[in-house]
Amino acid sequence: MSTPRQAARGRRPGTPDTREEILRAARDLFAASGFAATSMRAIAARAGVDPALVHHYFDSKADLFVSALQVRVDPRQALLPVIEAGPDGAGERLLRVLLTVWGDEESRTPLLGLVRGILEPAGATLVRDALFGLVLGPVRHGLGIDQPERRMALVASQLAGIVLLRYVVEAPPLVAMTDDELVASYAPTIQRYLTGPLPDRPLTRAAPEA
Amino acid sequence: MSTPRQAARGRRPGTPDTREEILRAARDLFAASGFAATSMRAIAARAGVDPALVHHYFDSKADLFVSALQVRVDPRQALLPVIEAGPDGAGERLLRVLLTVWGDEESRTPLLGLVRGILEPAGATLVRDALFGLVLGPVRHGLGIDQPERRMALVASQLAGIVLLRYVVEAPPLVAMTDDELVASYAPTIQRYLTGPLPDRPLTRAAPEA
Repeated sequence: MSTPRQAARGRRPGTPDTREEILRAARDLFAASGFAATSMRAIAARAGVDPALVHHYFDSKADLFVSALQVRVDPRQALLPVIEAGPDGAGERLLRVLLTVWGDEESRTPLLGLVRGILEPAGATLVRDALFGLVLGPVRHGLGIDQPERRMALVASQLAGIVLLRYVVEAPPLVAMTDDELVASYAPTIQRYLTGPLPDRPLTRAAPEA
Repeated sequence: MSTPRQAARGRRPGTPDTREEILRAARDLFAASGFAATSMRAIAARAGVDPALVHHYFDSKADLFVSALQVRVDPRQALLPVIEAGPDGAGERLLRVLLTVWGDEESRTPLLGLVRGILEPAGATLVRDALFGLVLGPVRHGLGIDQPERRMALVASQLAGIVLLRYVVEAPPLVAMTDDELVASYAPTIQRYLTGPLPDRPLTRAAPEA
C-alpha cells in the first residue's frame, strides 16, 4: 500500500527483482480495483518502473494477470483442448481442467486467495471481468454453442459451487470423491448446460445474446 | 469485541433490549468461533446476562442461530414442504425455497454477510456445522434417499454456486433469468443429485454412509 512511487527520471532499470515487483504491484491493484479498471501504466507507476519495462516482461494485461495469480497451470493453455475437440464431451474435459488446476497443491493457495477476494466488491468485479473473460471467454466463443453467455453462466455456477464446497468449505463427501467419481457426478450437468435444451425466453427473445 | 462482562450478582434482568443484546452476542460468537464451538452459556456471558434468560428467549441454539441470522424466512419452516411431499419433484421445491429466501430483499443483506463469512476459516466451519446440519440436515434425513450425505453435498455445491454467481458476483445472465427460467435450468440438476444414479464406489462400498 505504501510502495514509493518514483519520479520518471528516477525509475529503476530492469533488475532480477523488477519482474517480481511488477507482479506484486499487479496483485495489489487487481485486488483493489478489479481487472478492467487496472491499467498496465498504473501497475508500472505502483512498481516504480517505466511502462515499457512492464511490456518487456508481459505481452498483455491478461498475461500479467495470469502470472500474478501464481498458478502453475495457465488456464488458457489448459482450456485449448476443451475447445478444439468441440462441444461433444466438453463438459467432462472442462471439469477435468478444473480438477487439474485445483489439484495442484502449489496453485491452490493463490487460487484460494482469489476466491476469498471474490466476496469483496472489487473481487466480484475481478471475477466478472477476468475469469469470465480470460478463462471462460475462449470456451464460450470457441465452442460454437447457442446462447453462449447464459450457458457459460450456468456452467460457472456449478464449477464455482464445486470450488466453494470442495476446496474452501471442504465438505467431507466431496473431498472424499475421486476425480473419476466427481466427473461421473458433475460432467452430465456441465454438458447439459453447454449443449442441452434451455428454457424458452419469450420475453427477451427479441434481444438475442452476443 | 469489548462488551463488558458483568459479575454474576450484577447480571441485568430481562429488558426490552436484552433479547437484542443476546442476538448481537450470538452473531459475534458464531462468526468468530463457528456454530458447534459456541455454547448458549458463552453467549450469555458475552451478553452479560444469566444463561436462564437466554433459554427464556430461545428454545435451542439452533433457534438462536436462525434468529441471529435476521432472515425473515425461517429456512427450517420453508423446507418442511420439500420433505413432506417426498423425493419426486424435491429438486424444484428445494430450488424454489432458495429463490424465495434470497428473493426477500430484507433477508438478503444478512445472508450476504453469512456468505462472506464462509470464506473465513470459522465461517467455513459455520457452514459445515450449521447450514449442513440445520438447513440441509432435515432434507437429508427426511427424504429417505440413499447415500444422503453425498447427495446433499452435490446439491449444496449447485445451490452454493447459484448463490455465489447470482447474488454475490451478480453474473448478468443469471440475474436476468426469471425464477421459472432458473427452475427450468437447475431443477433437473438438483433432482438428479437427489434421486438419480450415483457413480459406483468400489473402494469404499464396504463403509456405507450414514
